[in-house]
Amino acid sequence: MRILGIDPGIATIGFGVLDSDRADIRLVKCGVIETPAHTSLSSRLEQIYDDMLSLLELFRPDAVSIEELFFNTNITTGIAVAHGRGVILLACRKAGVRVYEYTPLQVKQSVVGYGRAEKKQVMEMVRRICKLSAVPRPDDAADAVALAICHARSATSLLFKGDQETCSTI
Amino acid sequence: MRILGIDPGIATIGFGVLDSDRADIRLVKCGVIETPAHTSLSSRLEQIYDDMLSLLELFRPDAVSIEELFFNTNITTGIAVAHGRGVILLACRKAGVRVYEYTPLQVKQSVVGYGRAEKKQVMEMVRRICKLSAVPRPDDAADAVALAICHARSATSLLFKGDQETCSTI
Repeated sequence: MRILGIDPGIATIGFGVLDSDRADIRLVKCGVIETPAHTSLSSRLEQIYDDMLSLLELFRPDAVSIEELFFNTNITTGIAVAHGRGVILLACRKAGVRVYEYTPLQVKQSVVGYGRAEKKQVMEMVRRICKLSAVPRPDDAADAVALAICHARSATSLLFKGDQETCSTI
Repeated sequence: MRILGIDPGIATIGFGVLDSDRADIRLVKCGVIETPAHTSLSSRLEQIYDDMLSLLELFRPDAVSIEELFFNTNITTGIAVAHGRGVILLACRKAGVRVYEYTPLQVKQSVVGYGRAEKKQVMEMVRRICKLSAVPRPDDAADAVALAICHARSATSLLFKGDQETCSTI
């Protein structure tokens, strides 16, 4: 199964592509979509949408795993990120790929085995699980790989359980 | 000048199309895009995007006037609305139409002449300005017409000032 993990944003969107066969996970590609600062929100949204369609066309994932959105202290950033996440979901829909969402807690639980793990621990586990010599850079790319790993492991356990309904699709 | 006003949302999106020639304002069409409840966020976003492209194709506006997003008490609804607004802005961008955004205060100031006007007063002024026998229904459609009126008046005053820079495009 090929999974595309997405760390949503408006300035920097992380992506990570994995091939997963039960416990065996192989990193295919990871990186970021970056939109230039000082350009209009509309043009940034268009670039994110077009780049997402290109990623989906190039890697043809079976599923997309994306972070569930929470608002923290910076509501203005949160609104912009939600705009970006909207066009990311639209691109997946147009490409006919199912999207699954996970909370940061679920990702940490799945990757490290502990929901309150430090970011550094998550990064190190991403490196080990994908058998890499270094943690992927930048952080947004590594976060996206963690999201893909989370879905690979959830999808595997769901497969064994034979129950797709416990997994949250959006 | 033809203006398409948009009241953004995820379940109900208001739209209002005006033809404006200085002080003369004529309502062409108003209504709502509605997405079915209990369907996935992705499919609702796709419907909003596709319907927006149809509206833009059908009415060919010179400008789109949309409400600036603020978060009130319901953050969950706010996140969903921001997702919807993202795909609305994308549709406008793909159609090559410029988007202008206004706060509720600017809309009230422009339509009623008083930034703290009651919703009822705004609705009544929309009816009078467009020379209608009744206030447009539902409220989301009337709100969208108010946004279009706000831009018609701002664009007119900008025209006289010869200064496009004071108007907020996104």
